[in-house]
Amino acid sequence: MKKIRFAVAQLDPTVGDYPGNAGKILARIREAEKNGADLVVFPEMALCGYPVWDLANKKIFVREGLKHLDRIRRATAGLKVTAVLGFVGEGPRPGGRSRNSMVWISRGRIVGTYDKRLLPTYDVFLEDIFFEPGRKSPLIAWQGMRVGPTICEDIWDENYAEKPLAGLARKGADWVLNISASPYYRGVAQTREKLVRMQAARYRRAILYVNQVGGQDDLIFDGRSFFCDSRGEVLFRAPAFREGLYYFDWDPEEKSRPQVPGDPDAGTAAEVYQALLLGIRDYCAKNHFKRVVIGLSGGIDSALVAALAADALGPGAVMGIAMPGPYSSKGSWEDARTLARNLGIEFHVHPIRGKYQALLGAYWRQKRKAGKPVPAGRITLAMENLQARVRGLELMFLSNDEGRLVLTTGNKSELAMGYCTLYGDMAGGLAVIGDVYKTEVYRLARYRNSLGAVIPENSLSKPPSAELRPGQKDEDSLPPYEILDRILYLYIEKNYGRDEIVEEMKRSREKIKTSVRGGLARVVARVIRCVDHNEYKRRQTPPILRVSQKAWFGRRMPITNLFDA
Amino acid sequence: MKKIRFAVAQLDPTVGDYPGNAGKILARIREAEKNGADLVVFPEMALCGYPVWDLANKKIFVREGLKHLDRIRRATAGLKVTAVLGFVGEGPRPGGRSRNSMVWISRGRIVGTYDKRLLPTYDVFLEDIFFEPGRKSPLIAWQGMRVGPTICEDIWDENYAEKPLAGLARKGADWVLNISASPYYRGVAQTREKLVRMQAARYRRAILYVNQVGGQDDLIFDGRSFFCDSRGEVLFRAPAFREGLYYFDWDPEEKSRPQVPGDPDAGTAAEVYQALLLGIRDYCAKNHFKRVVIGLSGGIDSALVAALAADALGPGAVMGIAMPGPYSSKGSWEDARTLARNLGIEFHVHPIRGKYQALLGAYWRQKRKAGKPVPAGRITLAMENLQARVRGLELMFLSNDEGRLVLTTGNKSELAMGYCTLYGDMAGGLAVIGDVYKTEVYRLARYRNSLGAVIPENSLSKPPSAELRPGQKDEDSLPPYEILDRILYLYIEKNYGRDEIVEEMKRSREKIKTSVRGGLARVVARVIRCVDHNEYKRRQTPPILRVSQKAWFGRRMPITNLFDA
Repeated sequence: MKKIRFAVAQLDPTVGDYPGNAGKILARIREAEKNGADLVVFPEMALCGYPVWDLANKKIFVREGLKHLDRIRRATAGLKVTAVLGFVGEGPRPGGRSRNSMVWISRGRIVGTYDKRLLPTYDVFLEDIFFEPGRKSPLIAWQGMRVGPTICEDIWDENYAEKPLAGLARKGADWVLNISASPYYRGVAQTREKLVRMQAARYRRAILYVNQVGGQDDLIFDGRSFFCDSRGEVLFRAPAFREGLYYFDWDPEEKSRPQVPGDPDAGTAAEVYQALLLGIRDYCAKNHFKRVVIGLSGGIDSALVAALAADALGPGAVMGIAMPGPYSSKGSWEDARTLARNLGIEFHVHPIRGKYQALLGAYWRQKRKAGKPVPAGRITLAMENLQARVRGLELMFLSNDEGRLVLTTGNKSELAMGYCTLYGDMAGGLAVIGDVYKTEVYRLARYRNSLGAVIPENSLSKPPSAELRPGQKDEDSLPPYEILDRILYLYIEKNYGRDEIVEEMKRSREKIKTSVRGGLARVVARVIRCVDHNEYKRRQTPPILRVSQKAWFGRRMPITNLFDA
Repeated sequence: MKKIRFAVAQLDPTVGDYPGNAGKILARIREAEKNGADLVVFPEMALCGYPVWDLANKKIFVREGLKHLDRIRRATAGLKVTAVLGFVGEGPRPGGRSRNSMVWISRGRIVGTYDKRLLPTYDVFLEDIFFEPGRKSPLIAWQGMRVGPTICEDIWDENYAEKPLAGLARKGADWVLNISASPYYRGVAQTREKLVRMQAARYRRAILYVNQVGGQDDLIFDGRSFFCDSRGEVLFRAPAFREGLYYFDWDPEEKSRPQVPGDPDAGTAAEVYQALLLGIRDYCAKNHFKRVVIGLSGGIDSALVAALAADALGPGAVMGIAMPGPYSSKGSWEDARTLARNLGIEFHVHPIRGKYQALLGAYWRQKRKAGKPVPAGRITLAMENLQARVRGLELMFLSNDEGRLVLTTGNKSELAMGYCTLYGDMAGGLAVIGDVYKTEVYRLARYRNSLGAVIPENSLSKPPSAELRPGQKDEDSLPPYEILDRILYLYIEKNYGRDEIVEEMKRSREKIKTSVRGGLARVVARVIRCVDHNEYKRRQTPPILRVSQKAWFGRRMPITNLFDA
């Protein structure tokens, strides 16, 4: 085999934007040609973006894509470089499901096609609904070589009876190409490389892995394309979270070559931070929001979201609003102001006390008029929620008035426990840290401060509080976050039952503080009941950026559910 | 074959409620025994309810079910009747997917089992995610007969390569049993009977079809179990939307017997009305809400929802609140009051003018203080939404204060067009008519009035208006509903593209009014853009009772989507 110059086009497409995506693809093809590449490779579904869900079954959507594909084909007529890209192919039956397809284009002609065989249908993937699986793995004849084509799941074959790679190896593929749209979660880089390297070594075939980059609603794609040789050694890596065209020269005859170092950020707070930046940036850009607004409570969650937004969009695009209420501490809006000043964002203090009391007074008058008793001297759930909702109302007014996207600031621990108010702090267009546990929020905040201290130390050190009643602390209603997050992780990510969680926590080395009131078994049972019972709130959230392997988006639970886990 | 006395247990289970469901199953088995039944048949997943989604993959959930199954088995030890029921079976691999299973229990012993082979994975069904398919169709030997077991989709085999019925016929099944959890949509009764009768006649086997009844979040199961003989003639029908134990005596040797008449309500407004009643009743009962609250605008949508709620829960459980705003007509709350009086529900008038103006005044003061210009003399989108949200805030306060579920009143046409306000009229726990087009709302309202006039004629006859600015009418912003609903139906239910819709509407006999401004093609394009653009609002709705074949719940569209259909 001769030497190959690969151009890895780690694309950030926009779902449904055929003209835009095709334009980007054409520009990258020309750039690759200019730089002497032999093969320029785009990710799975590069032409239409991923995932397209039900769009895949619209005839007009598929046909429109084919038109743009044809335009790309014609444009390569005078070029030497071969281009490979993913698109939605027409299905075998009219009115039936479509295909998840790959095409090879050279000198104005289609020289190879392939349809994805293994269709992931679990968690955030529902490809069986939209696509008809391919049945064959033809080799692509290219420049005297036989290339084995695969799309994403095709190489993650452990849970499938079919093994596309085995077939390709048997037929004598010289090397394997995989185009993917593989979304990010903390730890995915290690899992992915381990799998691809293992498969390369098992079948003794080099694998070029090309992944999409970018944010699409809840999902964040991290790119991180790479090449590993037939011994499973990584010789090339494209960066994480960055769109671009990256070159790699491969000499198949070369006996040994130094492996390139791994990504030092993989699995760290730095990595999660980068992922969230991309998620915010792409959601805003692709939905044409230039500016955002965030309610700043002085607490750690909203501080982190504001820092992320300022880093993602620039401080000029961010407005922070402190809305102190009747039970807010003075420190709360001072911390918010310090944060805003540190970040250089627009900041206003809009107290809610007057608004809240005007509404509450009217409600109680109405109630008395109806001859119903009004609670005296205590703060009810209705009153707590009203405070949160007066804030939500104000943020939404600002959103409509100034054309700003509201970023919500709830974390995964709160969403799990329902420690949040529908239409109150849950109101907004994008839930930035809804898949980040509270203990991880602290780690991300400290990481951000390590780059330049913007989040006030006070927000990091004071005990978390919703400040909806005098002297309220989160830990009055919730177990300490260190314990809560561990229970939640075992319940949500690991899918453990009550007894398994208790056992696992007792077995593990972490010391369960004696301050868990009522004993661990009781606490675990209560947490699980809270999680289940609050499914109705999570059904009404905006998209939640996904950074864990089991985010809310891929977890399907009934609201009506009497099971006591 | 000898005569059989079937007891068809058309059960309404609650998801996750093993003790409750098992108790009901045991009571029905004993009742069937007492009444001399040979076979008592429960629906698919009767033991755990359907759908259970991710619960199916919790080990503890599966094991808990097996315990209750064992309890049922032991309880049948002294009985003559054989019981058949559906449950979640353990999967073949530890940590892998579960099974959708059926069990035959006789005299304290398990005498037959079967695992569902065809797993529906489209629209509201995602069984491939949760279940491992069965591979075999064993015959069940029972009382000298060979019975062919099937579960729901197994007989809907058109789009599958495998045909379980063909195998059962080949093996010599004497008759076929199908247990289902088949949800309602308008027209399902006809579709279902046609399919089952066609299959019975094709394979010359009688089929007993037993379906679940009841509401589960968005889904409503209509029951309507039936029996058809080997010529496809229907000899028995259980009622729609009613839980119960129904008996049918079958003599396989009997040559002919009169068919029973079809359901006169099938596909009518009466049927949809019944479906919605069950949806409301079960959502409230299963989630322990005894009372509801509804915002009454004087318009047709909220009037219909109030009538449904009063009919479903009793007038004593329903509170209506009229919240006239600065641009509400006087007629609006008078119509609401008349409605409430006709229904006999609790009713209050809580004007929002003062609350709205207090908040708006504060917002504008804040804005001026920040040196930003305040719009003068016009009503902006922010101001319209604020009115709707002040109402939402008040309903949620009442919800929290009195423990009432808020029923939302938006219809499918509005949800499609985004002609609704997040956290305003969209705020609530259950969207009762979110899958009912506006033109159908009128039909349902007229149907309800035909049983006893409760909805004021004025609500039926006045032009629809959101009343958020002076003189506003829906038809200022939207095409006439007759036209809009036709476009939406073709786009959402039929999945047509723009050109196909225009062609279809021109071809069809209905006259396109010349009053469609800007020509049909333009109107269709604008409607489609609105539907696509408002996906973000629909992502934040409460469960929407499903009465159409393509409801929002089974329609998966990206929010970020630049495709121009």
